[in-house]
Amino acid sequence: MGDVSLFSGTFARGPVAGLVSAGAWLQALLDVEAALARSAASVGAISHDSSAAIGVACADPTSYDVEQLAGDAASSGNPVVPLVARIRERVGAGAAADVHFGATSQDIVDSAMMLVARQAVAAVTTDLAASAGAAAALAAEHRADPIVGRTLMQAALPTTFGLKAAGWMSGLDQAVDRLTSVAERLPVQYGGPVGTLAAAGPAGPAIRVALAAELGLRAPALAWFTDRTPVLDLAGALGGAAGAVATCSLDLVLLAQSEVGEVTEGEPGRGGSSSMPHKRNPIAAISARAGALRAPGLVATLMSCAAQEHERAAGAWPAEWETLSDLLRLTGSAAHWLADSLGHLEVHADVMGTRAAESLRQSGSGLALEVHVAAAAGQVDAALAGRGGRSS
Amino acid sequence: MGDVSLFSGTFARGPVAGLVSAGAWLQALLDVEAALARSAASVGAISHDSSAAIGVACADPTSYDVEQLAGDAASSGNPVVPLVARIRERVGAGAAADVHFGATSQDIVDSAMMLVARQAVAAVTTDLAASAGAAAALAAEHRADPIVGRTLMQAALPTTFGLKAAGWMSGLDQAVDRLTSVAERLPVQYGGPVGTLAAAGPAGPAIRVALAAELGLRAPALAWFTDRTPVLDLAGALGGAAGAVATCSLDLVLLAQSEVGEVTEGEPGRGGSSSMPHKRNPIAAISARAGALRAPGLVATLMSCAAQEHERAAGAWPAEWETLSDLLRLTGSAAHWLADSLGHLEVHADVMGTRAAESLRQSGSGLALEVHVAAAAGQVDAALAGRGGRSS
Amino acid sequence: MGDVSLFSGTFARGPVAGLVSAGAWLQALLDVEAALARSAASVGAISHDSSAAIGVACADPTSYDVEQLAGDAASSGNPVVPLVARIRERVGAGAAADVHFGATSQDIVDSAMMLVARQAVAAVTTDLAASAGAAAALAAEHRADPIVGRTLMQAALPTTFGLKAAGWMSGLDQAVDRLTSVAERLPVQYGGPVGTLAAAGPAGPAIRVALAAELGLRAPALAWFTDRTPVLDLAGALGGAAGAVATCSLDLVLLAQSEVGEVTEGEPGRGGSSSMPHKRNPIAAISARAGALRAPGLVATLMSCAAQEHERAAGAWPAEWETLSDLLRLTGSAAHWLADSLGHLEVHADVMGTRAAESLRQSGSGLALEVHVAAAAGQVDAALAGRGGRSS
Amino acid sequence: MGDVSLFSGTFARGPVAGLVSAGAWLQALLDVEAALARSAASVGAISHDSSAAIGVACADPTSYDVEQLAGDAASSGNPVVPLVARIRERVGAGAAADVHFGATSQDIVDSAMMLVARQAVAAVTTDLAASAGAAAALAAEHRADPIVGRTLMQAALPTTFGLKAAGWMSGLDQAVDRLTSVAERLPVQYGGPVGTLAAAGPAGPAIRVALAAELGLRAPALAWFTDRTPVLDLAGALGGAAGAVATCSLDLVLLAQSEVGEVTEGEPGRGGSSSMPHKRNPIAAISARAGALRAPGLVATLMSCAAQEHERAAGAWPAEWETLSDLLRLTGSAAHWLADSLGHLEVHADVMGTRAAESLRQSGSGLALEVHVAAAAGQVDAALAGRGGRSS
Repeated sequence: MGDVSLFSGTFARGPVAGLVSAGAWLQALLDVEAALARSAASVGAISHDSSAAIGVACADPTSYDVEQLAGDAASSGNPVVPLVARIRERVGAGAAADVHFGATSQDIVDSAMMLVARQAVAAVTTDLAASAGAAAALAAEHRADPIVGRTLMQAALPTTFGLKAAGWMSGLDQAVDRLTSVAERLPVQYGGPVGTLAAAGPAGPAIRVALAAELGLRAPALAWFTDRTPVLDLAGALGGAAGAVATCSLDLVLLAQSEVGEVTEGEPGRGGSSSMPHKRNPIAAISARAGALRAPGLVATLMSCAAQEHERAAGAWPAEWETLSDLLRLTGSAAHWLADSLGHLEVHADVMGTRAAESLRQSGSGLALEVHVAAAAGQVDAALAGRGGRSS
Repeated sequence: MGDVSLFSGTFARGPVAGLVSAGAWLQALLDVEAALARSAASVGAISHDSSAAIGVACADPTSYDVEQLAGDAASSGNPVVPLVARIRERVGAGAAADVHFGATSQDIVDSAMMLVARQAVAAVTTDLAASAGAAAALAAEHRADPIVGRTLMQAALPTTFGLKAAGWMSGLDQAVDRLTSVAERLPVQYGGPVGTLAAAGPAGPAIRVALAAELGLRAPALAWFTDRTPVLDLAGALGGAAGAVATCSLDLVLLAQSEVGEVTEGEPGRGGSSSMPHKRNPIAAISARAGALRAPGLVATLMSCAAQEHERAAGAWPAEWETLSDLLRLTGSAAHWLADSLGHLEVHADVMGTRAAESLRQSGSGLALEVHVAAAAGQVDAALAGRGGRSS
Repeated sequence: MGDVSLFSGTFARGPVAGLVSAGAWLQALLDVEAALARSAASVGAISHDSSAAIGVACADPTSYDVEQLAGDAASSGNPVVPLVARIRERVGAGAAADVHFGATSQDIVDSAMMLVARQAVAAVTTDLAASAGAAAALAAEHRADPIVGRTLMQAALPTTFGLKAAGWMSGLDQAVDRLTSVAERLPVQYGGPVGTLAAAGPAGPAIRVALAAELGLRAPALAWFTDRTPVLDLAGALGGAAGAVATCSLDLVLLAQSEVGEVTEGEPGRGGSSSMPHKRNPIAAISARAGALRAPGLVATLMSCAAQEHERAAGAWPAEWETLSDLLRLTGSAAHWLADSLGHLEVHADVMGTRAAESLRQSGSGLALEVHVAAAAGQVDAALAGRGGRSS
Repeated sequence: MGDVSLFSGTFARGPVAGLVSAGAWLQALLDVEAALARSAASVGAISHDSSAAIGVACADPTSYDVEQLAGDAASSGNPVVPLVARIRERVGAGAAADVHFGATSQDIVDSAMMLVARQAVAAVTTDLAASAGAAAALAAEHRADPIVGRTLMQAALPTTFGLKAAGWMSGLDQAVDRLTSVAERLPVQYGGPVGTLAAAGPAGPAIRVALAAELGLRAPALAWFTDRTPVLDLAGALGGAAGAVATCSLDLVLLAQSEVGEVTEGEPGRGGSSSMPHKRNPIAAISARAGALRAPGLVATLMSCAAQEHERAAGAWPAEWETLSDLLRLTGSAAHWLADSLGHLEVHADVMGTRAAESLRQSGSGLALEVHVAAAAGQVDAALAGRGGRSS
């Protein structure tokens, strides 16, 4: 993950990179500490004055030095240890003991991770939905425009470009649904040093519920320090979303091949080459593909990291932080590029049609082109009808 | 994947290996062809005589030579091409043309893959549920038995063994839920050569619905030849299940360490060594871990394979077959071993308790052991109450 | 891994599948036990009579029941425990104590794994070298046959088909070199229960050296029970080989596209479809690609498994066995398919040439086609000259 | 990859993070352009005045705006397009045409990637060698200090701590060798738009040789635009190095467990906890482990990306940039942490010895402790002797 990269033009496109940045993480950590203070105060575990002081201390992430926090985090292994020390300095002796009430570092980092993930997932789904919408519009417009159906990269029999686009739409719609469902279940983390809530006293369970409500997260029955279900769910859903982007962007790149020429990316001023000015590269689809290619390895890392020891893992837990951030960023960037590509697509229906007719002739199929087209168009109509209220 | 391996004792434990074997796949392929014939007949697209003849030809997988089919499949790239040829020979000239009605190879393989996956997932979830149930029983029994809580592999503060077990239970329960939800949505595949349903004539959509009903699968709006959502969903859910098994089995191995000695696997006659007869290895937990370790790489493969070209992928599609079978087998084997380990666990609560008390003394914690224990036990009770009707 | 799969036509092509089968593993285990006996006898640690008896007992793998061994292995976690018991039964009381002299299970399994890997790698490199040779022949034949150079899948400027083939050759040659270098360094394993050689007595180090010589493996300074360098080296080199196969087979599939039509796979009777008899799919290249796609996930698994505890890992060690076997099998199968594809390739130089000339015209390049071609041909000549004595 | 992360304390330890930063990449890109100009001038292809002007323009990376370059790179898909435009502005009309002589973007990016990798690998190997040296020192010091040998996490028979450390040393030494060997073979990239060298005119091959010499890289026979052998070699070797770090750091974490207590990390002021001030976590070993855990997924990504189309890949090529940077950074960070942990290790030989003696008694082994220790010490001596001139 990273805030500055020479390659961010390709891999940090759209809003998600900012939502998983160091600043966004710091904001989330502070939001959790502040919400924890409010929650503890709401059940009488700390004073409202303390809560207010903590809220002030946590209000402005830019007032903290990210690089110094990151450096100081090395000796404890996570950034909450130095962050809590600084918050305590700010609130002064009166409220210092009330900061981080009943919590352990992992409570704060995991809850913040869920906040970061929720925001980032919302942005990813927005771009996936925009992609799906653009695909739906293409499906509707080209429902009956014939194109060669290609299997194993060989011309087979006619389909329509609309049905092809409907297939992209379907995968993207389902990716949105899967991610949305996961995002709705993301839980707060609150368990104290070893997950018993003992440090929070009798109010522990109530604070967990209040904290969840404050943050808009689910209140789980247990701390999930080493039960990484939420991370695994995110990993699976993001990997799936990247797959939906990958298959669509691959098709676009293939259709844009010089020898095929059935689509062109229509955004002007793009796709240039340092050595070949005559070229017009489908750079948005290529960039979508490039980002999506990087997802499966990160998913595997998160799944390998699910094996976490006892009440806090010695290595596998921190290994999630940048990995999940990268997975969110890359999936989001890929989705953003795909929406761009599909949203500016020039469809050369004439080229498609001519080739489809010629290919059908060579196939010896007994069915007329119209029959193939009507069948495909019927499928498109059914798929579009099944989308319900989704926008296109 | 494989039916015979020198290592199947460790990696093909329980029922799943059989459910993803060559025989199971062949059975599923034949089941799909037979169900397709019935479906086509039900809408009048082929005769009931043909359907009956095809049903007979597809009734007995053992009447086909798997090795020969596998060999013959090489030249077309999938086993349906030679299988359909053989079915046609069997039904004779009268019904030959009605075999494989309106279908393409991928219709049959993908639908069969869904049948295989559904059956295998059911077995995986049974063993996951058995593991969760055993963990729930441990949680209930030891709800108030203190144990050292360990963070970063260092003694921290007391928790209870029941709460530890409840954490395992929670991860396993959620893995069951996730897999069950995916299994319920698995779709039939039916689209014909390029997914338009044109080859099936006007009855195409009705045949898809009938085929789905015959096979107990969902009827999707579109063919999903290169929209691999169902495979991605399976990959994510199985990877998550393997993660739940991994974290639990890792804890068991750590608790069974000679220097810790807080649990022992109780199955007699196990865990021997070729050179050290005095040892007692927690072989079930180790075998569970070994299987689970192999899942993330396979998940990454399936997710990489989601990028599929046009109307049928040139390589990424076949790459799913053995990979998904292996992922099912290994997750199933790991879950089976885990249920075995948890179901025969000897818990040395006295060792746990003594160490927890000593550790608490060293920690300088201001809270009495009873307070820690009561808090943990309260968490256990809440988690068990939240399980509803699940068995333990 | 597996000996029978419905998909072995695609994924178990060529000799490697047999070399990593259950039978091959069993043979290797027996070879190691027999060689250990000879080595121990050679230094006087056991009698030559014992060695001879052990040799007889280990001579015929088919005299052992693989399935029963596999099943019995479950309770100890590896197949050597039951195998040694059976060998001891066969040799009788007189020599029973001399079986498995000074060894632990991992000595036998790891040494056998090196034997299996060495044989399989030899077969993989044979097929890679055959592929490289076929590519070299294409490079020589078509050194000056123009083809469109394509960047980002768009026509750019002319190159020659020979230079394209030389690029494939170069990657394949280097894959051969890397694998050969790794195979030459594969070490024997011999350390006894915890790697000290204590169980073998003072002759331990000499037995290790003798055993290495017997098996044609390297004698390492130390046991490498949990230092998995040899496995990591194999993983890296096989992953690299799969990558070389993948990029070449991808190019072939792209060149064979209906709209491109610059190559055709020439093997008759291949590439048929269940629904579209007019198609001619490049099934060998597709199958090569399918196999290669599955390698990276397996490499990741082996690398994740490098973290092994103390003197023998609780899970990560057994996880290597089938994974490495699969990686060998799939890389071997892919290399075999690639050699097949390249060896039967029909090159449509006329189509290539016409398109290259037309594309150059559109590019506005100031250089004549001859200049592009001559430059490319010069590169081909240099690359072929640099191959030295490799065959084409 | 990234230059600022809230988690850089853990994952960007040591020098490598800086060597793969945006600034380092920009420096390398400029170094390549400058060296190309010198090389072209050296063979008379451009004037020395042009070369000098280009050298001036490329001298100071900080004079370029990284963020703007990154942003502008989006529309072409790589940062060389905007960078070359800016260099041309700086050198003025006289030399503008001589900038980027005969090159394509990939020539510059790939050559820069090799420079970045070479520098980063040198730093990684320095820290690996420091780790190996520290392990060697431990091996020598504790060659005859008994410790329990543990198999499957169970006490087995005695070994010595020196032999354990020698095992770590061996894996680390081999990782150094493998990486060094790969780094010595890294090639320059120079081929022009489609790899023919045509754009450079007759001097093309000579410029490639000169450029290689200028940059200290190998001059390959061919451009390797889509033959990714160098990247695959790096991936394999870095994955192997991460594996060597992982197994050693895992052992350290296990030995440091409260219940084992055989080692402690000796660096003061480290390992604190936000909630449990009495704890002393082996934070360096944990951080090493955390970094190493993330390597296999990145290796898989690079290997998946080896399948690159034609003369420049549409997605898989850019996907390498951040992935390789991250793999270098994480392996380097992990190696740096490991050197830290091993270099400050407090070894509790008394605890080890007491437990080893007790464990031996329980084992019923017929051999005295001295025999086990002497055998182990002999192995240590052989391993240390075999290290030759490496420092400890």
